[in-house]
Amino acid sequence: MTGQPMRYPPVRELSSEECWDRLRTTVVGRLAIAGDAYPEMFPVNYVVDRGTLVFRSDPGAKIAASLDGARVAFEVDAIERVTGEAWSVVVKGGLEPVLATTDVLDALGLPLFPWQYGAKAFFVRIVPVSLSGRRFVVADPAHWVTQITGIQRAAEE
Amino acid sequence: MTGQPMRYPPVRELSSEECWDRLRTTVVGRLAIAGDAYPEMFPVNYVVDRGTLVFRSDPGAKIAASLDGARVAFEVDAIERVTGEAWSVVVKGGLEPVLATTDVLDALGLPLFPWQYGAKAFFVRIVPVSLSGRRFVVADPAHWVTQITGIQRAAEE
Repeated sequence: MTGQPMRYPPVRELSSEECWDRLRTTVVGRLAIAGDAYPEMFPVNYVVDRGTLVFRSDPGAKIAASLDGARVAFEVDAIERVTGEAWSVVVKGGLEPVLATTDVLDALGLPLFPWQYGAKAFFVRIVPVSLSGRRFVVADPAHWVTQITGIQRAAEE
Repeated sequence: MTGQPMRYPPVRELSSEECWDRLRTTVVGRLAIAGDAYPEMFPVNYVVDRGTLVFRSDPGAKIAASLDGARVAFEVDAIERVTGEAWSVVVKGGLEPVLATTDVLDALGLPLFPWQYGAKAFFVRIVPVSLSGRRFVVADPAHWVTQITGIQRAAEE
C-alpha cells in the first residue's frame, strides 16, 4: 500500500483559538497528574478564566499537587453528532492554588457548578504552557471489518 | 459547620464488579502516560477483553510506551440522565503490546471500532493492577450559588 493515497478523511490539527473555543463549550474534562507509580486521573468540572482553567476541590490529591506546582495534563473531548466529527483538546501546564483573597472572590463569581456535591471550598487553576487539539471524521465501523473480523461478526448473527 | 451532618447525597465507591460493568458500557476513555515534563493524554476507543482493555494504534507515543511497559492510568466516565447520577472509573496498570500472532488474530476478532480512521495495525493492552470507581448524584447548580455568585448571576439577567 506504500505510496498510495489514503482513502479516509485526514485528522486536522486545531489552532490555539479553536482549542479555546472548544474548551469553552464543555464543563467536564479529565486531569492527569504524575503519580509515584501510576498517573492519577480525575474528572473535573472546570471553567475557562482569562487564559486559564479553574476548578473547585476539597482538600486531597489535587490540592496537594497544586501546592507542589505539579505539572499536569487536562483533556476534553466530544463527538458532534451533527457533523459526525470528534475532537479532543489537551492542555499541558502547571497547577496553582488560588489563595489570595481577591482571587478567591473573583473565582467565587465564576460560572462554575461542579457535578459532585460537597464543600469544595478551594479553587485550583491550571495555567497552560501548551495547547493541542485535533478533530476528525468519525470512522464508519465497516472500515474495521477485515476478513477475520467479518467472519467473526457474521458468526454472531 | 464542624460536626453537623452533611445535607447532600454521599459519593459511593464502586465495587470491582461495578467498575467492570461500567467499563463494558462505554467505548471511549482517556489514557494518561507519564511524560518527561508533563503527562501525555490520549482519548482512546477500547474494548474489555478478559480482564484487560485493548485498543488499536498506529506507531507513535502509545506504541513506544507499550514497548517500555509504561505504567498508565485510564479513565472513563458518564452521566446517566435517567438516574441523575454521574460515575467515573479509573484503571491503573501496565501497557503491553500485543505481538504474538495468535494474540493479534484474537484481537482482530474483538468488537473494536476506533472512531479515528487509519491503519491502526497495532494492538495495545492495558493490564490492570488496580481499579477504582465512584458514583454520585449530580449536584443541583443552586447548591453553588452563594451570596457572591448569586449577585453575579443576578447581574447577568
